[in-house]
Amino acid sequence: MTDITSTMSATNMRFRLAITCIILEVILIILFGLFVQYNEDTDAKHWHEKINNKTSNAENDFYYRYPSFQDVHVMIFIGFGFLMTFLQRYGFSSVGFNFLIAAFALQWATLMQGFLHGLHHGKIEIGVESMINADFCTGSVLISFGAVLGKTSPVQLLVMALIEVTLFAVNEFILLFCTGKGCWGSMTIHTFGAYFGLMVARVLYRPHLDKSKHKNGSVYHSDVFAMIGTIFLWMFWPSFNSAITAHGDDQHRTAMNTYYSLASCTLATFAMSALVNNEGKLDMVHIQNAALAGGVAVGTAGEMMLTPFGSMIVGFLAGVISVLGFKYLTPLLESKLKIQDTCGVHNLHGMPGVLGAIVGAITASFASKQVYGEGLKDVFPDVYDNSLTASDQGLRQAISLAVTLGMALLGGLLTGFLLKIPIYGAPPDTICFEDSIYWEVPGEEGGHEELADVRTEEAEKLNG
Amino acid sequence: MTDITSTMSATNMRFRLAITCIILEVILIILFGLFVQYNEDTDAKHWHEKINNKTSNAENDFYYRYPSFQDVHVMIFIGFGFLMTFLQRYGFSSVGFNFLIAAFALQWATLMQGFLHGLHHGKIEIGVESMINADFCTGSVLISFGAVLGKTSPVQLLVMALIEVTLFAVNEFILLFCTGKGCWGSMTIHTFGAYFGLMVARVLYRPHLDKSKHKNGSVYHSDVFAMIGTIFLWMFWPSFNSAITAHGDDQHRTAMNTYYSLASCTLATFAMSALVNNEGKLDMVHIQNAALAGGVAVGTAGEMMLTPFGSMIVGFLAGVISVLGFKYLTPLLESKLKIQDTCGVHNLHGMPGVLGAIVGAITASFASKQVYGEGLKDVFPDVYDNSLTASDQGLRQAISLAVTLGMALLGGLLTGFLLKIPIYGAPPDTICFEDSIYWEVPGEEGGHEELADVRTEEAEKLNG
Amino acid sequence: MTDITSTMSATNMRFRLAITCIILEVILIILFGLFVQYNEDTDAKHWHEKINNKTSNAENDFYYRYPSFQDVHVMIFIGFGFLMTFLQRYGFSSVGFNFLIAAFALQWATLMQGFLHGLHHGKIEIGVESMINADFCTGSVLISFGAVLGKTSPVQLLVMALIEVTLFAVNEFILLFCTGKGCWGSMTIHTFGAYFGLMVARVLYRPHLDKSKHKNGSVYHSDVFAMIGTIFLWMFWPSFNSAITAHGDDQHRTAMNTYYSLASCTLATFAMSALVNNEGKLDMVHIQNAALAGGVAVGTAGEMMLTPFGSMIVGFLAGVISVLGFKYLTPLLESKLKIQDTCGVHNLHGMPGVLGAIVGAITASFASKQVYGEGLKDVFPDVYDNSLTASDQGLRQAISLAVTLGMALLGGLLTGFLLKIPIYGAPPDTICFEDSIYWEVPGEEGGHEELADVRTEEAEKLNG
Repeated sequence: MTDITSTMSATNMRFRLAITCIILEVILIILFGLFVQYNEDTDAKHWHEKINNKTSNAENDFYYRYPSFQDVHVMIFIGFGFLMTFLQRYGFSSVGFNFLIAAFALQWATLMQGFLHGLHHGKIEIGVESMINADFCTGSVLISFGAVLGKTSPVQLLVMALIEVTLFAVNEFILLFCTGKGCWGSMTIHTFGAYFGLMVARVLYRPHLDKSKHKNGSVYHSDVFAMIGTIFLWMFWPSFNSAITAHGDDQHRTAMNTYYSLASCTLATFAMSALVNNEGKLDMVHIQNAALAGGVAVGTAGEMMLTPFGSMIVGFLAGVISVLGFKYLTPLLESKLKIQDTCGVHNLHGMPGVLGAIVGAITASFASKQVYGEGLKDVFPDVYDNSLTASDQGLRQAISLAVTLGMALLGGLLTGFLLKIPIYGAPPDTICFEDSIYWEVPGEEGGHEELADVRTEEAEKLNG
Repeated sequence: MTDITSTMSATNMRFRLAITCIILEVILIILFGLFVQYNEDTDAKHWHEKINNKTSNAENDFYYRYPSFQDVHVMIFIGFGFLMTFLQRYGFSSVGFNFLIAAFALQWATLMQGFLHGLHHGKIEIGVESMINADFCTGSVLISFGAVLGKTSPVQLLVMALIEVTLFAVNEFILLFCTGKGCWGSMTIHTFGAYFGLMVARVLYRPHLDKSKHKNGSVYHSDVFAMIGTIFLWMFWPSFNSAITAHGDDQHRTAMNTYYSLASCTLATFAMSALVNNEGKLDMVHIQNAALAGGVAVGTAGEMMLTPFGSMIVGFLAGVISVLGFKYLTPLLESKLKIQDTCGVHNLHGMPGVLGAIVGAITASFASKQVYGEGLKDVFPDVYDNSLTASDQGLRQAISLAVTLGMALLGGLLTGFLLKIPIYGAPPDTICFEDSIYWEVPGEEGGHEELADVRTEEAEKLNG
Repeated sequence: MTDITSTMSATNMRFRLAITCIILEVILIILFGLFVQYNEDTDAKHWHEKINNKTSNAENDFYYRYPSFQDVHVMIFIGFGFLMTFLQRYGFSSVGFNFLIAAFALQWATLMQGFLHGLHHGKIEIGVESMINADFCTGSVLISFGAVLGKTSPVQLLVMALIEVTLFAVNEFILLFCTGKGCWGSMTIHTFGAYFGLMVARVLYRPHLDKSKHKNGSVYHSDVFAMIGTIFLWMFWPSFNSAITAHGDDQHRTAMNTYYSLASCTLATFAMSALVNNEGKLDMVHIQNAALAGGVAVGTAGEMMLTPFGSMIVGFLAGVISVLGFKYLTPLLESKLKIQDTCGVHNLHGMPGVLGAIVGAITASFASKQVYGEGLKDVFPDVYDNSLTASDQGLRQAISLAVTLGMALLGGLLTGFLLKIPIYGAPPDTICFEDSIYWEVPGEEGGHEELADVRTEEAEKLNG
């Protein structure tokens, strides 16, 4: 009985979560009040001054970017949220905590990105582009969430989001300040999020996690729910990669390269998934995740003149690497490196992100005015105005990868130790991957009592 | 046996539903034939005359509004439909009847809104803007549907939609005619829909509804399905609020204000949901509903220069009010006022709608050329041309709220009594919240007979 | 035991699927490398040459078509994929194989459509319009998939896609070459896909399919999953029909006509579904499918000046025909013509497609400059420049239907015989409509072993 009570009070979120959320939101509101204002395209006065100078309303950035923004938004909230519902008893937390930390992270990201690389006369000016950037930064946090899924309390997740968003913006600042404009999409989002999360998972390693082993897997319906996440991520990835590239050919080309990379990656994924199984049976884990690696892997070079041909090669490789990672590397990561990567983010975001960064560096080093014409200005302004050679641009891309990896690992390490402090109400090893610890959970048809007692049952095990 | 037979014939939809649908659709087709025609942007001839005068195709309203329209469309059919699938045995009806009454209401709304405030030389001219308005009006009906969910037959719902759409258009007409152009988004849709539905639910009060109590709740999977609705509503609410605001900065600003209001509301919702539970466990009902209140509450003022700061405050308040409403007010509404509000629309649409109207009135009364510049013309044309002071504009907004509330309550009362007539095949108290009364329902895995006999079982209870 | 082993090796996909996918993707990549290049709107150099001639970035085709493309994309991957999850134990395959063959088909379609009617100086130039066309062609393959759902291996499906895409492009070429520009949307996609698939199903007829009868149906949750597919198809059908019509009024008008046709069709579907059931209970099969027939049926004429009035009549008829088809024709097709049409594609895509073609022919024959003005050029260029009379245009539309039907039936026949060769690992009659034959399937809550042994159990039946 004591154990039940102590478990319950140890993980009771009543004041912990309420106070954390309220304090964070109050701080956000105050900082928004002090520093945030409309930009030229969202301010009534300034926009009307601008269109009086003969710009059409159609030139408002809203019409260039809002449809892409909404696609990205769907990826963040439906895509990431439902992708993680594959666990049999963690659907509420997967979608719910994804919802909570994304809603926090996008506000915090607006501030951090604004402070670090968006200040205009001491004010942060916002519009649809900053909203997309905030969603991107949020995506990075959600990737890290995937690595620690099922083993963390919502308060831990909020603290992780707080630090990760900050470091994400610092990393962007360093890349921008040290290396100038480049294409780092896949690096700053996927690679950063994955290695940050993996390092947090490493520090939070649970040697006795096998006590929750029976919950750490899918059931039939939960896998179908997860496919909702997968397919929405897959479909809208072209919008993700193209959402903040330059207007015109850049957005168009990026979306198209991503489209073909993903299609190619999907065939590679099905091929490899059948191949690595003795009976030739497909594994839902591969289909749900590896088929998306093609989007990650063209995240950096998709904006460049990679051609659909090049995109398809990259997508194919990403799919192969990702399935092999799930099959052979993930078990090793757990047994050798003590990294318990619940969603396998190393296979979907980690390795494909690094691949993407390398592809980006190589493709950048072949950039030329002959191929890009005047369009070079939009993609590589420093190469365009001859302040940098193409191969130096490639080198810069490679350095950016190294910096990002360093920041992610170091940041994750720090954050992991901070989250280890036993004040956040993390679940005990016996009740991981289980909604009922943080949620009022209804019963199933014909078995209403089944779940209500899950904690009692678990507690009895502890006593037994 | 007689009871089974009588229940079955009493709720048999064969001719009731078929004839209602056919008659309604035939009337719709005839009225469309007589009164509806393409507007300038959808008519081949007129559009080409217009672009010959040097307008680009990009200026066709389609490109300004169609992406927003599709987002709104998703909210109406997926958002509302799936939000209501939380009930364990009412998924077919939630999505299906939502589908039916929305498909009817959008056609009828085209006519009613056209007749009352869209006639051009005796014809209703339609395009993407009228489609959005029709979807909006439909949204109002679906809100009312939420209040009576599980307790009404599809024929009752169609009759309710018929009357509610008509009165909705009348209310718009009164506001437009009496008070001139203003911003009443949240009032005319959310407040109207909620109080109309609550009044209908009041008149249709069932003292013995506890006989269906065991069906009036969720199961694990049905709550995950409901989250599909929640998240799509949440994501696309910026499009909802901005879909018919003026081109340019107005659409852009409204979408952004809504984005931040919702994010803030989500943190407030999680905080309050944990706080009102003794064990600190989150309640899916709150997350599914209260997190959306921020969208409702900036529905009126989102178009104004509310600032993200202001939006976040409003969103936070809306989340707090909404959770408190679910926890403390909904039980009182049932026990004291005899209003059985199945989905808690009072907490999601009612109170936040009123809050939004008040915020709108206050924000409007501070409008000035200094802040809005030439943009004031788009938001408050009467203030712009000095035919109204800002505080009068605020007063006008407040009066609009009162008118809308009056119309909704009176209309709901009338409709409720009309729906009480026992000819529509409403379900008996013992078989509410149950699909099998109106649908062919398949069994579950490993228990096919379980459901097929639900009616027999229920009937036996009646006899017993 | 021998039987189990032989069944397992007969349907083992390990090398069959892996090698098929890899060979196909390698061929695709090589052909893309040789023949595919960016078009004017996706190429950095050419687009910047173009906008220097005073075009705005807003005129890039991306902004006209990308939102519609994404809607179409959702229909292909979520719409078709989830619509087919209605089967109780075929959710993985429905969404998964849909995903696989769509990812292949869109790449192959880019090449085939390019070779046959898109070559520029020996190169295929691609952009958002070709992406939409590739998705359309893919849709046709997915319709055929619906006819053979549950009875085919993924290798069979890939081979079917390979041939069907090729013949689809040949059919487009014939129509374009022989009859000039016209409107054939619904013909080339729905009618072609449906009759092609029906013919394949005919050749693959399984006299002993009743051995899998208990799997060939839905359960409660699988029907709710299927509604996700239905509703997304229904909502985005306006985008489907308008995605590649001319800029401006054409896209706008087509979307609007489709919107009203679908709304009308939905009421007809509910009416008929209640009417054909003795107890007046609605059938999910009808709602999931017949409510979409209105989108198919205005696929050809939606672009024309059909008016919302005309669209609603067409939609109503399509709904009526479709429900009657499900109730009375599908059983006859199976018993008399030996066509086992799993999803009833004849009712959703076949008959409504033919209806749509006829409506298109009639509407075309009434086209005139009086009604269309200068807009006639976009819809019927040959009528506009007087090289064809309107009634000849109507005749041309009718001939196109005949050609398409012929191509589909002949192509399906050929493909069916090719797929009959017993090398593709098709499932035995006893294990159709069952995921576990090609997928690693997890258990259900409280019954993990239940499914793992399904093959053993089935094999025992074979022995017994």
